[in-house]
Amino acid sequence: MIQQCYTMHDMETLFETLKTFNKPGEMKGITRLAYSKEDEAAHQFMVETMGEHGLFVRKDAIGNIFARLPGQNSQLPAVGTGSHLDTVPQGGAYDGALGVVTGFYALMQFKAGELLRDLELVIFRAEESSRFGFSCIGSKVMTGKVKADQWAENVDDEGQSFFQVNDDAGYASEKIASCCLPDHYFSAFIELHIEQGKRLESDGLTIGVVNGIAAPTRFAVLVRGHADHSGATPMYQRQDALVASAMIIEDINHAACRESPWGTVATVGKMEIQPNSMNVIPGEVTFYVDIRGIEKSSISRVASRLQEAVHKAEKDNDVTITLREISSEEPVKLDDGLCDVLAQQCEKNDISYMKMLSGAGHDTMNLAQRYPAAMIFTPSKGGISHHPDEFTHFSDIEVAATLLKETLRELGNRQ
Amino acid sequence: MIQQCYTMHDMETLFETLKTFNKPGEMKGITRLAYSKEDEAAHQFMVETMGEHGLFVRKDAIGNIFARLPGQNSQLPAVGTGSHLDTVPQGGAYDGALGVVTGFYALMQFKAGELLRDLELVIFRAEESSRFGFSCIGSKVMTGKVKADQWAENVDDEGQSFFQVNDDAGYASEKIASCCLPDHYFSAFIELHIEQGKRLESDGLTIGVVNGIAAPTRFAVLVRGHADHSGATPMYQRQDALVASAMIIEDINHAACRESPWGTVATVGKMEIQPNSMNVIPGEVTFYVDIRGIEKSSISRVASRLQEAVHKAEKDNDVTITLREISSEEPVKLDDGLCDVLAQQCEKNDISYMKMLSGAGHDTMNLAQRYPAAMIFTPSKGGISHHPDEFTHFSDIEVAATLLKETLRELGNRQ
Repeated sequence: MIQQCYTMHDMETLFETLKTFNKPGEMKGITRLAYSKEDEAAHQFMVETMGEHGLFVRKDAIGNIFARLPGQNSQLPAVGTGSHLDTVPQGGAYDGALGVVTGFYALMQFKAGELLRDLELVIFRAEESSRFGFSCIGSKVMTGKVKADQWAENVDDEGQSFFQVNDDAGYASEKIASCCLPDHYFSAFIELHIEQGKRLESDGLTIGVVNGIAAPTRFAVLVRGHADHSGATPMYQRQDALVASAMIIEDINHAACRESPWGTVATVGKMEIQPNSMNVIPGEVTFYVDIRGIEKSSISRVASRLQEAVHKAEKDNDVTITLREISSEEPVKLDDGLCDVLAQQCEKNDISYMKMLSGAGHDTMNLAQRYPAAMIFTPSKGGISHHPDEFTHFSDIEVAATLLKETLRELGNRQ
Repeated sequence: MIQQCYTMHDMETLFETLKTFNKPGEMKGITRLAYSKEDEAAHQFMVETMGEHGLFVRKDAIGNIFARLPGQNSQLPAVGTGSHLDTVPQGGAYDGALGVVTGFYALMQFKAGELLRDLELVIFRAEESSRFGFSCIGSKVMTGKVKADQWAENVDDEGQSFFQVNDDAGYASEKIASCCLPDHYFSAFIELHIEQGKRLESDGLTIGVVNGIAAPTRFAVLVRGHADHSGATPMYQRQDALVASAMIIEDINHAACRESPWGTVATVGKMEIQPNSMNVIPGEVTFYVDIRGIEKSSISRVASRLQEAVHKAEKDNDVTITLREISSEEPVKLDDGLCDVLAQQCEKNDISYMKMLSGAGHDTMNLAQRYPAAMIFTPSKGGISHHPDEFTHFSDIEVAATLLKETLRELGNRQ
């Protein structure tokens, strides 16, 4: 039975229904960890809903879901959209789920055979890193980025690896290679997601056209000075690990501000001080630097500025500093052509928008390495995400869902 | 029975004996908290030892001990020396005890009636703030600085105030006013103490002639920014409480370095960061500033520079900062004349020395407000103090004890 008219109100009802797939007893936001009972139930509910609405639904060996609306020529690569349903503990209702419900809404606006190409809604499994300590498992599996040994070592709080959990949920880890999608599977992929920042809100814009996804380059910085009496040690004899750290933090901040034209950011979010006592000069400080951007050369400039700051701080403060790179991921540029399509659609429909980078990672990051891909961001109230207070106005969601629909129409009819 | 010859070896034995008054089972250093059984026992041992060696010993209403060697004219103000026996938890053997044993050694080098003036060894009670949260109780009581209401509110880990503990130990808090010493009680007071810093060691000197005791002026700084996603928040939108804090820390450090000619120091030793997560911009930071010096105007310059740094950091980082003064004690200048006597004695005896400030507080700080006073510092290995590794070479102690003896001789014979 294909429903003739799937309305915005239907989409809103679906969104509210998904909220009910929550950990029993959870009072703060949504807790739907990957492969938990509630996560499985939410996925099963979507399988049934999409089937009832006439889509051809399949699951792969780790439970990724593909729901297809046939076009006139199913031999052509399809146009894809989608996102994920799992959440962080006590997260919000929008992160991930919004891309699923708007994608379903968009597909429901077309009849089978109405467009040239098939449309396909993808629900990626285990996007959040909360359960296994690494993220975007579904999209990595689809794009052949399985690291079996490493993944086997990362266990959840119950000591189970992704593979064990996947098998226990009734899937088939031994067939994981079969999940890899063929070349030319998609002609384009568009993920709709909340911004998780406050740039759109601050600028009063409704849509973000995401043209790149930043990747974090992370360093641990260990500063070793000497813990001495704060009263008895003259300034010239100090080996103050905190003053050295402060100099580095300021330099990194300055370096990242200079890279603003390229969108690079740098943050020191975590810092531990020893002995952390009011009348003792800090003898040891450890802090972490998180550099993100889309331009590799810009990221490199900040990283080399960090090294220079470390050398200077060592000399200026008579301390020794160890700089250790703990991760360095490749930033991902999204498809300029697709971004232009999205931008043109915004202009045609008088939708206020900006082209912007995503600071957070998404499944599209993996898809983009094999298929033309882009993302649509909706504003996040106060930039709050991964939190019960996560919120996007429904009026903004309507605009985004319509933009997604119109973009799928244009891409679905492309030769 | 007056022992005819009290040697350096006797002093060393006394020092070693005092080490045995330790908390039962303590494996790390010395734990002799004020008014604990071990502290009481150590004081009682000194009362007996000093009595056996012919000194006239009295205790006041809080257990301060005074041991007097008569001179030719006991009507003249006496020459005093002394220090304390209580320690911090897991402290060292030298802090305090060294001033008691060297003072006793020095008095033992003279016969009754040998000098013009009486010599008096004082053992101050409860110098360390470890038990009651405030320090130098003995010398405060002697100099009329009792703050009964405030002291009654500060309780130890068992919930007892100083007054309760003092009474339980068999003393008489209701007679505390009687502890206040008369005017002209001392013509001079010299305390020998370990440096608790490493200036003497670094400069290869044996003696510090202490001409001032710095006092801490302390501030709590609360920086309120906004905790945002480290990837999704561009530099221009950040309200980074840690970057703001780093700027202030660097400015204070610079300001204190400029005050080096006046010996002023400034330290940020303690800092708390919220939420302290690698991928979240710090939303709130609290840190503490400890400024110490002997020149009030120099301390004021650093404090006002702190205020300027706070204003600048607020503007530069779009954060709000609350600056709260949590204490402001008066620095104490010691007696120039007594310092010159000590310096001349050093020169006469080819002892390497420097005039210096004490960054840490001492009982002499209180005595100096009523009597001419100065201090002798011995080197601390590595500057380590309040720690089991606290150490001063016995050869340095011998030099200091001899200097103390010769200084008492000179001051004791002064008209």
